[in-house]
Amino acid sequence: MPAWSRRTVLLIPALGVVHAQNTPTESAVRAVLETQQTAWNRGDVETFMAGYEASEETTFVGATVTRGYQKVLDNYHRRYPTKEKMGRLTFSDMQIRPLGTDYASVIGHWHLERSADAGGNAGGIYTLLFRKTAQGWKIILDHTS
Amino acid sequence: MPAWSRRTVLLIPALGVVHAQNTPTESAVRAVLETQQTAWNRGDVETFMAGYEASEETTFVGATVTRGYQKVLDNYHRRYPTKEKMGRLTFSDMQIRPLGTDYASVIGHWHLERSADAGGNAGGIYTLLFRKTAQGWKIILDHTS
Repeated sequence: MPAWSRRTVLLIPALGVVHAQNTPTESAVRAVLETQQTAWNRGDVETFMAGYEASEETTFVGATVTRGYQKVLDNYHRRYPTKEKMGRLTFSDMQIRPLGTDYASVIGHWHLERSADAGGNAGGIYTLLFRKTAQGWKIILDHTS
Repeated sequence: MPAWSRRTVLLIPALGVVHAQNTPTESAVRAVLETQQTAWNRGDVETFMAGYEASEETTFVGATVTRGYQKVLDNYHRRYPTKEKMGRLTFSDMQIRPLGTDYASVIGHWHLERSADAGGNAGGIYTLLFRKTAQGWKIILDHTS
């Protein structure tokens, strides 16, 4: 067995780690987003919001900066008062980046399929910041545009 | 000396810590932003860009997602080819949040004072993600809207 064969064997698991898209952090964060998407699409804003940390520091950046879990929830209720206004949400192209062991960033696209009466389709890009809390991975910052 | 006096004395340093805006992380991050603002206002895009990590993973989110330091720099050169187009930049209302020891998030407002010929005034909100690198604190993610 020549020397390079042994080297090749050693490289395979290393490459495997680099290319894997399923680290525990990524899987956990992705699961939160899937739960949010499913909750939104049945008109359940409360479960959608459970993806955010219930903290005064939780912040949503849209046209303005909204700080505090309750205020972010109030805004969702105000902007999306009915299942029709909520429409059908799809998240796509998520790029998840672990930041140490307790934080992660996500960049992704969102698309809202909605009747013209309910405001029409909408969409854009979001950046999320997640924190690993005692209650699981939660969004602490959401910049949506 | 009644019991509450002693309690009051003990609370003062605790409140001091909560309200201090000058942890080493905050000071370092703020210094990067000040350097960027000064560089921008003398038309020096290269020094402005030195605030970002020179990495393929460095990402700018605007109307689209741009990934890679060089591509982000190319976009700045394309969008702001002259000192007149760059205008006069002001950052304000920065909220800096340390995320463990090696990361920090910043939410802030940006304003560009510019002649009508050069495109007029502009402004909005940014979310930055900083990483503590061997070269100092650097922006790894910028969502500007």
